[in-house]
Amino acid sequence: MAQVYYLEGRVHEQSVFDYLYRKIPFGGGYVIFAGLEELLDIILTLEFSADDLEFLKAQGFQDSFLEYLQGFKFRGSIYAMQEGDLVFPLAPILQLHGNLIEAQILETLLLNVLNFQSLVATKASRMRQVAGDKTLIDFGLRRSHGPASYYASRASIVGGFNGTSHVLAGRDFQIPVSGTMAHSFVQSYPSELEAFRAYAKHQGDACVLLVDTYDTLRQGVPNAILVAKELESRGTQLVGIRLDSGDLAYLARESRKMLDTAGLTYVNIAVSNQLDEYIIRSLHAQHAPIDIYGVGTSLVTGQPDGALDGVYKMSLCNGRPNIKLSENIQKTTLPGKKQVYRLCDMDGKFRGGDLIGLQDEGDQVDQMHHPTDPYASKPIASYDKRPMLQAVMENGERCLPKRSLSEIAKYCQNQICHLPDAFKRFENPHRYQVGISTKLRDQRNALIEEFSK
Amino acid sequence: MAQVYYLEGRVHEQSVFDYLYRKIPFGGGYVIFAGLEELLDIILTLEFSADDLEFLKAQGFQDSFLEYLQGFKFRGSIYAMQEGDLVFPLAPILQLHGNLIEAQILETLLLNVLNFQSLVATKASRMRQVAGDKTLIDFGLRRSHGPASYYASRASIVGGFNGTSHVLAGRDFQIPVSGTMAHSFVQSYPSELEAFRAYAKHQGDACVLLVDTYDTLRQGVPNAILVAKELESRGTQLVGIRLDSGDLAYLARESRKMLDTAGLTYVNIAVSNQLDEYIIRSLHAQHAPIDIYGVGTSLVTGQPDGALDGVYKMSLCNGRPNIKLSENIQKTTLPGKKQVYRLCDMDGKFRGGDLIGLQDEGDQVDQMHHPTDPYASKPIASYDKRPMLQAVMENGERCLPKRSLSEIAKYCQNQICHLPDAFKRFENPHRYQVGISTKLRDQRNALIEEFSK
Repeated sequence: MAQVYYLEGRVHEQSVFDYLYRKIPFGGGYVIFAGLEELLDIILTLEFSADDLEFLKAQGFQDSFLEYLQGFKFRGSIYAMQEGDLVFPLAPILQLHGNLIEAQILETLLLNVLNFQSLVATKASRMRQVAGDKTLIDFGLRRSHGPASYYASRASIVGGFNGTSHVLAGRDFQIPVSGTMAHSFVQSYPSELEAFRAYAKHQGDACVLLVDTYDTLRQGVPNAILVAKELESRGTQLVGIRLDSGDLAYLARESRKMLDTAGLTYVNIAVSNQLDEYIIRSLHAQHAPIDIYGVGTSLVTGQPDGALDGVYKMSLCNGRPNIKLSENIQKTTLPGKKQVYRLCDMDGKFRGGDLIGLQDEGDQVDQMHHPTDPYASKPIASYDKRPMLQAVMENGERCLPKRSLSEIAKYCQNQICHLPDAFKRFENPHRYQVGISTKLRDQRNALIEEFSK
Repeated sequence: MAQVYYLEGRVHEQSVFDYLYRKIPFGGGYVIFAGLEELLDIILTLEFSADDLEFLKAQGFQDSFLEYLQGFKFRGSIYAMQEGDLVFPLAPILQLHGNLIEAQILETLLLNVLNFQSLVATKASRMRQVAGDKTLIDFGLRRSHGPASYYASRASIVGGFNGTSHVLAGRDFQIPVSGTMAHSFVQSYPSELEAFRAYAKHQGDACVLLVDTYDTLRQGVPNAILVAKELESRGTQLVGIRLDSGDLAYLARESRKMLDTAGLTYVNIAVSNQLDEYIIRSLHAQHAPIDIYGVGTSLVTGQPDGALDGVYKMSLCNGRPNIKLSENIQKTTLPGKKQVYRLCDMDGKFRGGDLIGLQDEGDQVDQMHHPTDPYASKPIASYDKRPMLQAVMENGERCLPKRSLSEIAKYCQNQICHLPDAFKRFENPHRYQVGISTKLRDQRNALIEEFSK
């Protein structure tokens, strides 16, 4: 497609593309927008290497176009919500303005980065909701989709996790790194007690003992208590024990009793084994005395959905708003340069609605229409309307400083506080309303009219 | 863990680890083993960089251990089934022999590579089963988990796909690359016909036209026919049209009629839009005249399971077989160095059973026991017993030449032909039996006895 644009002399035609999604995963009430800062970093360094060009030549691409690619650099602009914002179906999360070729070349990269990180951040956030102030650690590297784990670790922090077992992600994103021993470590010693002692000897100040290799309550916990006492006599403290099988609520409670009876009230209980937000909620509801949750598969693969259905749709080309029709009117695109306004109360609390308007409408809109039902609209004059899309890249350069991961995570937690609880519940959450302005509706309908002929 | 082994002077203790999985994803009857050649390549170049060591030092690792890591290279051995083999729950797919430290360091890498590629190859194979000889193309890059898409493209070829839209994977793995236009390309022109003409002008010999931007049967297909005729007059042929929405069976049938009536019987029909093995099967059952399936999300994310539950379990340390117990006896590990024998008929057809025996038992075993039910066993003397684990790496070097992706894919298709149909059906497939030899059972039971005390 890019080559055709080039050969047709359309290099300088400007276009606008919207990034949006249609369906909230996990049956939830919101999605967390994540991956933006990563995406911008990648765009800044995006280029075609000599190897790339050679391969494309072998695929039949033409020399003149390859020469163009040799000097390729994204020089367009990006307007986006902030990473960590809560985002809702149909509302553009990001608008990219650029020439036809650069806008086309960025499509798949953009979708690949944002869809995945937003999926994982959203999943992580659901676990944070039910975990209260307990510690959540990403343990997903072994079950994640190859190198995706690196970005899953990052995204889980956006959504509210505290750490990761992924050492490289820890280094590059300044995420606290942690881990515990595996069953094989215990197996490698003649007895569990010898294994615990060896581990405690060298990991004294960061020692979490896995207690379920042979028998949790009859061997594992008693051995851990013995070693904790030995550590005390050396002036250090056992950090925790980890339960990785069986009835976690029961085992946590019994272990807690045994630890407390031994005067080891400071020893944490960590659990793992196929956790997700529902199991964490259940454990929490049972008052299981768990301090640390290690979550793997469900977090890093975004089970059960596995993908956010984000799309990248052209809304304007060469100064002219345009449209893609669909038998399903919900899939008909919204034309033109747009702004999204979040309806808020005076105290900043979200009202549960986003208005999509044209970019030049300002926030003076007083009526919001349902995107597809022509009879449904509501007055919105009385609400505070916060514009959500802001310039993050202009002429190929960042126009805002890069935000750190911890800053984004903090921002995200704050946004979640502004969303009423009804939108956060797992079962049949309240549906957030995304509507369109009168001008946008009329422009869309005129284009439908024109292209249906 | 590795540091503790080092500080305890256990560098030279040899260990054996099994890679196996427990549950077949997708409710299917088999899993395809994939990722091995990639894994071996990574292991061959695995080392710790100065940056890595510096970060580990900052994390509190000790100098003597970091010095050891500086010279780290895997020098152990790997015995494995072949990439493309069909593999079944509980049977070791791979055994790694190495010193405690190297075996530990490889764990997560190995699981990360093999679990994901095996998941995707298995999913791809299910689609190949129902797609007959039609073309299957991986279109998943935009919905895959970040960089995982690269390996998903590779794994989909193992499972029977024909090509990918992932250009980099195409280059590196010699996979045919293909793609079509997007809706935005059509939108960027004043009319669909002008868009088609421009595309055909420059992509004449590889031209697939997307016909559903405005109205498939009233605009898209008639415009494509017009352009196909124009191409004919220039001596080339339109490769195909693509349907990306609506009732694909109906639209394919109507489009086929229109194309055929126009004398364009050679024009292919490609479809996409949330395809999976069930939709492809349904389209096939309806005799929808579809030539090319472009599959995205469900393939590259391995929906709905999202992960293969492969694990890496120690079975021997320092010459001594060992065990991990579990409240669930199915999760109790199998001790010692083992071999897996596939039971076959004289004609090579699989009998539907794998025997796990000790490595030195040879194939003289005449009885196979259920791994957990002490009363279930069956005579297997009359079957051909094919040993499945072979040395692929010895002393840190490959001992077999690297197999090409196309060779692996061909081998895999051949293996699938040897599996009886009952194991391949989607609904309640016949359960493949994996059993253990008398010696292995006795050794395991003795260890359970010992460690339960």
